[in-house]
Amino acid sequence: MNELEFIARLTENLPSNRFVLTGPGDDCAVVENGSPGQLLLLKTDAVVEGVHFDQNTVPEAIGHKALARCLSDIAAMAGRPLHALVTIGFPSNCQFEFIQRIYAGLNTLAAKHDVAVVGGETTASPDRIFISIALLGSVAKGKCPLRSGAKAGDAIFVTGQLGGSIAGKHLDFQPRLAEGRWLAENFPISSMIDLSDGLATDLRRILHASRAGAELLAASIPVSRAAKLRFRTGESKKAPLTAALTDGEDFELLFTVPSSQAVQLLDGWKQQFPELPLSCIGRITSQPGLLLRSSKGLQPVTEHGYIHFA
Amino acid sequence: MNELEFIARLTENLPSNRFVLTGPGDDCAVVENGSPGQLLLLKTDAVVEGVHFDQNTVPEAIGHKALARCLSDIAAMAGRPLHALVTIGFPSNCQFEFIQRIYAGLNTLAAKHDVAVVGGETTASPDRIFISIALLGSVAKGKCPLRSGAKAGDAIFVTGQLGGSIAGKHLDFQPRLAEGRWLAENFPISSMIDLSDGLATDLRRILHASRAGAELLAASIPVSRAAKLRFRTGESKKAPLTAALTDGEDFELLFTVPSSQAVQLLDGWKQQFPELPLSCIGRITSQPGLLLRSSKGLQPVTEHGYIHFA
Repeated sequence: MNELEFIARLTENLPSNRFVLTGPGDDCAVVENGSPGQLLLLKTDAVVEGVHFDQNTVPEAIGHKALARCLSDIAAMAGRPLHALVTIGFPSNCQFEFIQRIYAGLNTLAAKHDVAVVGGETTASPDRIFISIALLGSVAKGKCPLRSGAKAGDAIFVTGQLGGSIAGKHLDFQPRLAEGRWLAENFPISSMIDLSDGLATDLRRILHASRAGAELLAASIPVSRAAKLRFRTGESKKAPLTAALTDGEDFELLFTVPSSQAVQLLDGWKQQFPELPLSCIGRITSQPGLLLRSSKGLQPVTEHGYIHFA
Repeated sequence: MNELEFIARLTENLPSNRFVLTGPGDDCAVVENGSPGQLLLLKTDAVVEGVHFDQNTVPEAIGHKALARCLSDIAAMAGRPLHALVTIGFPSNCQFEFIQRIYAGLNTLAAKHDVAVVGGETTASPDRIFISIALLGSVAKGKCPLRSGAKAGDAIFVTGQLGGSIAGKHLDFQPRLAEGRWLAENFPISSMIDLSDGLATDLRRILHASRAGAELLAASIPVSRAAKLRFRTGESKKAPLTAALTDGEDFELLFTVPSSQAVQLLDGWKQQFPELPLSCIGRITSQPGLLLRSSKGLQPVTEHGYIHFA
């Protein structure tokens, strides 16, 4: 059983209630709260020593990453983050200063986005540090792009450059919060997701939820310098394009918009976010499946993104 | 540095924002959400294998306990729980059925209290299982008892019976949700907390937040059968009263109310919750400190409750 099947089975019969608009299966849960014009977003995520960071990781970067991962999910819902709850487990021999520096990294990022850290649970964790963060956010009603809204003909966009995140970006990336909100406020974004497990895997999540397929243009996929460098130096055996398709932890936004809006969106983006590349990488098709158009013609994308559990 | 000092230092300079009414330091955080008449409650908590449960614990009980601990904090704020986010980390050799049964225990308790499980993150945790839960709840404005409102002369009450929870109750306790709401709806509850670290420690939290002292009546403290039995059989060296004062994980409600309301409250309680004992165990004093009145006279309570870290 792989992670996706595992989660699918665990989330089959979860209890719900009348306030839940979107439960598990999107970047965040979306719930009604009686607040006019607003919906609440809920997200939780964890990082574990030896899995998401190691003993040599700068502690401030651990805290940054733990919170940034959750913020990236709020960004993918075009939301505004509000409140964070931070649970941290650590061995009894852990230095106070180390934990304090984890918090410092987390607090700096929280303050930057006006997020209040409203709860701070600590617990013993005999072998290794883990940090679990829950985040509450809000989004304007009618302005929250889900994974399920992509339509045949929609243009597919991605922010930033992809692949090779392990070289450093996975620790210091900036969640695309302002970008996500600007997109949903100004364009009819039909679906959006943040890239945590790789373009191929995360795009498949949109396709699965939207019951659609996609055709990507190999030449349009923005490959990061890190992915190219790691291949050139032999640090990674993945060809740069493969890395861009399958490496995890890019934490960029992947979204779709009716193709009639594509040019206007690109123009507006360049004015609004001149330093962050935005690439149109393909289109949604009614035919299921994920295809890649390159100089070799049209081929199915067989590479899978990073899956946490085998 | 003990756990309380540790947490105090970590939570000194946490970022906040204009929506936060009560940040870290109470049973839940309380935030404004633009919803008329309602406030949001936020709580996170974690259980770790080898600390809060062990390899022989029935998996359903692990799930029950993980959620019940958070629900107990919502109860202490007189709140209604709404939505849970569940992060679970486990080793790769963990059986799917085991995780599924943890969820089953959790889901049963969630459904009982109309709590929606809206997010289900799983992650690798190489050595041991941990479960971190975040809970969102709501409470009526003006009906949320904090730890800080106890006044000299107030009567001190506790639900249930105390001590010896390790004999079993720590795994299958029922959070006092209906009780907490009934109390705040019908009486001017001046402070409330749930007993997680022992009566002596948790009462001190109320006293510290309220800048007050207390005098307890030894004969009125409800000692559990488990605490008596464990002492009689030699399983525990703690005298039953000491166990009731210092054992952790009772998850009963400790609260204060103006003494003029005490008789009416006891009468109303017996009608409303005939099967759950409610005991008036003492009174709040203006003089700081925690004193115990017994046949030996008035003595300071020196025993500390269970502290997670030394």
